[in-house]
Amino acid sequence: MSQFWEALFSQTAGAIKPSPIREMLHLIRQPGMISFAGGMPDPAIFPVEQFNEASSILRSSGRDVLQYGTTEGYGPLKEFLATWTAPRMGRVLKAEELLITSGSTQVVDLLNWALVDRGDVILVEEPSFMGSTLNMHNHGARFETLDCDGEGMIVEALPAKIEALRARGETIKYIYTITNFHNPLGCTLSLQRRRALLDVAYRYGVPILEDDPYGYVRFDGDHLPTLFSLDDRGMVLYAASFSKILAPGTRIGWCAGPAELIRKMTVFKQGVDVCTSVVAQALVYEYCRLGHLDAFLPKIIAHYTKKRNAMEEAFRRHLPLDEVRWVTPQGGFFYWLETPNIAATDLFDASIEKKVAFVPGHTFYVGQGGIHNGRFCFTFASSEEIDEGASRLGQAMRERLS
Amino acid sequence: MSQFWEALFSQTAGAIKPSPIREMLHLIRQPGMISFAGGMPDPAIFPVEQFNEASSILRSSGRDVLQYGTTEGYGPLKEFLATWTAPRMGRVLKAEELLITSGSTQVVDLLNWALVDRGDVILVEEPSFMGSTLNMHNHGARFETLDCDGEGMIVEALPAKIEALRARGETIKYIYTITNFHNPLGCTLSLQRRRALLDVAYRYGVPILEDDPYGYVRFDGDHLPTLFSLDDRGMVLYAASFSKILAPGTRIGWCAGPAELIRKMTVFKQGVDVCTSVVAQALVYEYCRLGHLDAFLPKIIAHYTKKRNAMEEAFRRHLPLDEVRWVTPQGGFFYWLETPNIAATDLFDASIEKKVAFVPGHTFYVGQGGIHNGRFCFTFASSEEIDEGASRLGQAMRERLS
Repeated sequence: MSQFWEALFSQTAGAIKPSPIREMLHLIRQPGMISFAGGMPDPAIFPVEQFNEASSILRSSGRDVLQYGTTEGYGPLKEFLATWTAPRMGRVLKAEELLITSGSTQVVDLLNWALVDRGDVILVEEPSFMGSTLNMHNHGARFETLDCDGEGMIVEALPAKIEALRARGETIKYIYTITNFHNPLGCTLSLQRRRALLDVAYRYGVPILEDDPYGYVRFDGDHLPTLFSLDDRGMVLYAASFSKILAPGTRIGWCAGPAELIRKMTVFKQGVDVCTSVVAQALVYEYCRLGHLDAFLPKIIAHYTKKRNAMEEAFRRHLPLDEVRWVTPQGGFFYWLETPNIAATDLFDASIEKKVAFVPGHTFYVGQGGIHNGRFCFTFASSEEIDEGASRLGQAMRERLS
Repeated sequence: MSQFWEALFSQTAGAIKPSPIREMLHLIRQPGMISFAGGMPDPAIFPVEQFNEASSILRSSGRDVLQYGTTEGYGPLKEFLATWTAPRMGRVLKAEELLITSGSTQVVDLLNWALVDRGDVILVEEPSFMGSTLNMHNHGARFETLDCDGEGMIVEALPAKIEALRARGETIKYIYTITNFHNPLGCTLSLQRRRALLDVAYRYGVPILEDDPYGYVRFDGDHLPTLFSLDDRGMVLYAASFSKILAPGTRIGWCAGPAELIRKMTVFKQGVDVCTSVVAQALVYEYCRLGHLDAFLPKIIAHYTKKRNAMEEAFRRHLPLDEVRWVTPQGGFFYWLETPNIAATDLFDASIEKKVAFVPGHTFYVGQGGIHNGRFCFTFASSEEIDEGASRLGQAMRERLS
């Protein structure tokens, strides 16, 4: 029947392929493999006991929790988030500015439903998170890409890009940026560039999706103000989730933005999943209400600080330092290595042979690029595995150089 | 800023409105209102204790449950469903035929991603579940509608419709049918028509989405074989969920279908929400593993049988029987009343004044129709409310007739 279905598939379905990371899974899951590939938290730091404690809400509020919820999200969780996020949002959010989602990936999906017609342009950093660009691609978006350096998106290049696109008659719908501890780059948008980015948004009337899954997981330095908190014209939609500050298995994300946009996204959410799992939302709420979010977050940060340090030391100890460059991430999950004289796919093959996995850089590009880069996640592997993995990676690099 | 966002909204966003039921919520939620409107289960019958017992899995498998899950679904839940569904699926499902979703509404969304290009035609029963048609509309589908009678879709009319569409050069992507205890009609597709529908699907090469949220909730008579179990050519995608057999707050649905279609839908699921809440899936799995699903389902059925009987009796007692017609539902959640001499919107206004709510029939039509019909849910209100609500409804009808 394969041909029968092939003939029925939509043009979108015909054009997309499973993610390269999924394709690699059989390699990554080999016994003995040290994986820097997936962007996964360390299960050793999951607050299992504390989350289990929150399950009391399944009894105390059982009938509410098991019923259909409102599409906007579980009321108590919304109230909690409205104030808990205030330090980063710059103020307490109003209920109509906040939407709970089935993970922050759904924020991208709902925004695309609200804004994107086939052929519209989205301005994206390159490289960027492939889950987001996959969704944008499915919605028929085309991409204009923005280069990044150690301070994040090179905002200075934006006005010329926007003007050129508009001169060609293109419709630009929004700018997508991962402001803190970028996936895959690890870099953070500087304060000066944040202000400059908002200026561009205002000047050209292009809104911004500020994707911030890693923002709370900062190891060094001070938090920078979010674009949302710097924006006084309602042109930023801010997206975040509990995946990195609690655990991803909850699949609870949220977004904050102008009420008229949130309302429109909510109508689409009705049509895609009615509402986010009330059971999962209630468990997360109760975990937060019991004080575990605030108590446990410093432990998560301390744990990943050690792992980031372990990877930094291991790279310095084991890699051929003349042949590899990186910017040390101040938070988040990832190192982005550049090996100007080694092709990443060659390095990947050599590394897999030595049982160490990473994600080759080209995977994060909607166009061409990243052929001398790789993303290395430091949160999942143990500190011992990080050292051993870096050692094997160093050997693989030296083999490829000789 | 409202104009700013208005100008950016997609054509889809510009064309859709919030569901009429959402618009009615402020009316339905008035104090003292008896609601037959929403299609909600009775929270009094939620297995609160049993579901709470399942929370032990949050401790015993905490690290797995809190991590990212596979897009296909939580392995143990898939294994459970593969065999638990066998009596209705006709056989044990293979892993690659099964996808766990964020409620069964997501099945419709993922199928539309896989199959529908803007302008494609979907054949739908009219009236039908508005959540599904909203999603189809968002994907750019156009509709060809199929009338129903007491035995469900009038299949005999299908070939001429398909031939006429194809003669006009239309691309038909699938047939959408709610086979058991239809929403909103309450009717069930007869066995003869099930066979006839499959014959049409084979003859014209048009696959079927069999949406079966209510199938397990049968009060009278024997279960009819599902289209999926009757199909030997892999042309049926079957969708169901735990919303009516456990509780909707879990938001766990599933679908069974040909592996190549499931694979394609899985790729889209990556882009819309990565995976369904593992926490919610694990709780549902543990509830099932502990035997509660099988033990509790008969209680749910007995509870709703009483309520269906209460509504049947109350309608017979209180409504002007010369002026109203219905087919008694053998399962599910809904009565569909026809009042040939009373406009449903007038009846709705008169009923709301008397503090009883239902959903006017036109709401379930993608075209015109249903102006003398209403959907009445018997599962949510108590038996006493059902009697009192029917009494008020009868008064409202008599007022409208005089």
